[in-house]
Amino acid sequence: MRLHIAYKNYSSWSLRPWIAMKVAGIEFEENLLPFAHGDELAKLGARLGVPAKVPMLEVDGRVLWESLAILEYLAERYPERGLWPADAGLRALARCAAAEMHSGFTALRTNCPMNCRASKQMTPSAAVEADLRRLAELWARFEAADKPTGDFLCGAFSNVDAMYAPVMWRVRGYGLAVSPAFARWAEAVYALPAMREWEAAAQAESWTMPEYDAVG
Amino acid sequence: MRLHIAYKNYSSWSLRPWIAMKVAGIEFEENLLPFAHGDELAKLGARLGVPAKVPMLEVDGRVLWESLAILEYLAERYPERGLWPADAGLRALARCAAAEMHSGFTALRTNCPMNCRASKQMTPSAAVEADLRRLAELWARFEAADKPTGDFLCGAFSNVDAMYAPVMWRVRGYGLAVSPAFARWAEAVYALPAMREWEAAAQAESWTMPEYDAVG
Repeated sequence: MRLHIAYKNYSSWSLRPWIAMKVAGIEFEENLLPFAHGDELAKLGARLGVPAKVPMLEVDGRVLWESLAILEYLAERYPERGLWPADAGLRALARCAAAEMHSGFTALRTNCPMNCRASKQMTPSAAVEADLRRLAELWARFEAADKPTGDFLCGAFSNVDAMYAPVMWRVRGYGLAVSPAFARWAEAVYALPAMREWEAAAQAESWTMPEYDAVG
Repeated sequence: MRLHIAYKNYSSWSLRPWIAMKVAGIEFEENLLPFAHGDELAKLGARLGVPAKVPMLEVDGRVLWESLAILEYLAERYPERGLWPADAGLRALARCAAAEMHSGFTALRTNCPMNCRASKQMTPSAAVEADLRRLAELWARFEAADKPTGDFLCGAFSNVDAMYAPVMWRVRGYGLAVSPAFARWAEAVYALPAMREWEAAAQAESWTMPEYDAVG
């Protein structure tokens, strides 16, 4: 099983399946494709007949693309790893939130690009503020849900945490104000050994993307 | 189980779970919320603590939002209805394509809004052309897949057909050129009895959205 990802410092989509697989203890080979510093990703996409985007998962002679579909695949293939919560109602809630991230939070994603090396204080735009309010509302909903104890949205770490994991970096990198529930969750995500490994790799990367480094 | 949707003529997101439930024979109550002609959807979203968007599914005292999450929920709750294909590899492919639609095809979705009453000839922009080429590539991938016989992407109708069903209307309404495989699929989707029911309702709706009617 080979996971194609891009820059650990900048690629929020790459982080999602990577952190899920690491936390779940799923072994995989990693292939880094810095798409702004070469054409390997474009070539791979063309060869495999999928969009030239990360992440991609090669497994059993197939290629899977789209982070959410990859996470669904992993949850199904490794049911004992609990990548979705066991309770059907909680699982439905987790999938609603995961799908909302997959297509939403555009202002936050556009204006506050993930940059693990950033340490700034941004004054958020009204649109980013609206996304942050929606995050607070969503986190309150998870807090109110009937769920196992644990530091993550459904108690134990699951796919919905993976989908939102890059938001931890956005909030941290730009000093965005969040709800206490979100702040607690972000600390737990940051403290994951796998996230420490990701951060160390991001810090060590030599590629830079000046347009992202200039944000904030 | 109550499905909140908007205009049948214009609301592509509403069509997705609606057609899936109809084709799968899942009974539900339907509530139409014409969001540009009243504030009922905004009020409902505020009351339920979810984005004021369609579709929403109220079930067992819960509210689910995001079409893709609703489709996952239905597939899980009614496993005998085959809303995802039975084969794991084919199911993974279907989910990749479904997730790609959930967050992608922006040019097609923006420039060719679903309008069941439209019958025009649009000259597609370069960005729309690129989306149409991607559709052809995706349909070729499904054609090449090992799958049961049938008129739909995975043989029998499944959630991935539901996710792309509005594209049938876009292609039809604006006379867009598509691959033969896509054209055959679109005919099959159009011929579904449930789609005939949807079209009759769309034709009969009195609400109009001039900004969409002006497109093309």
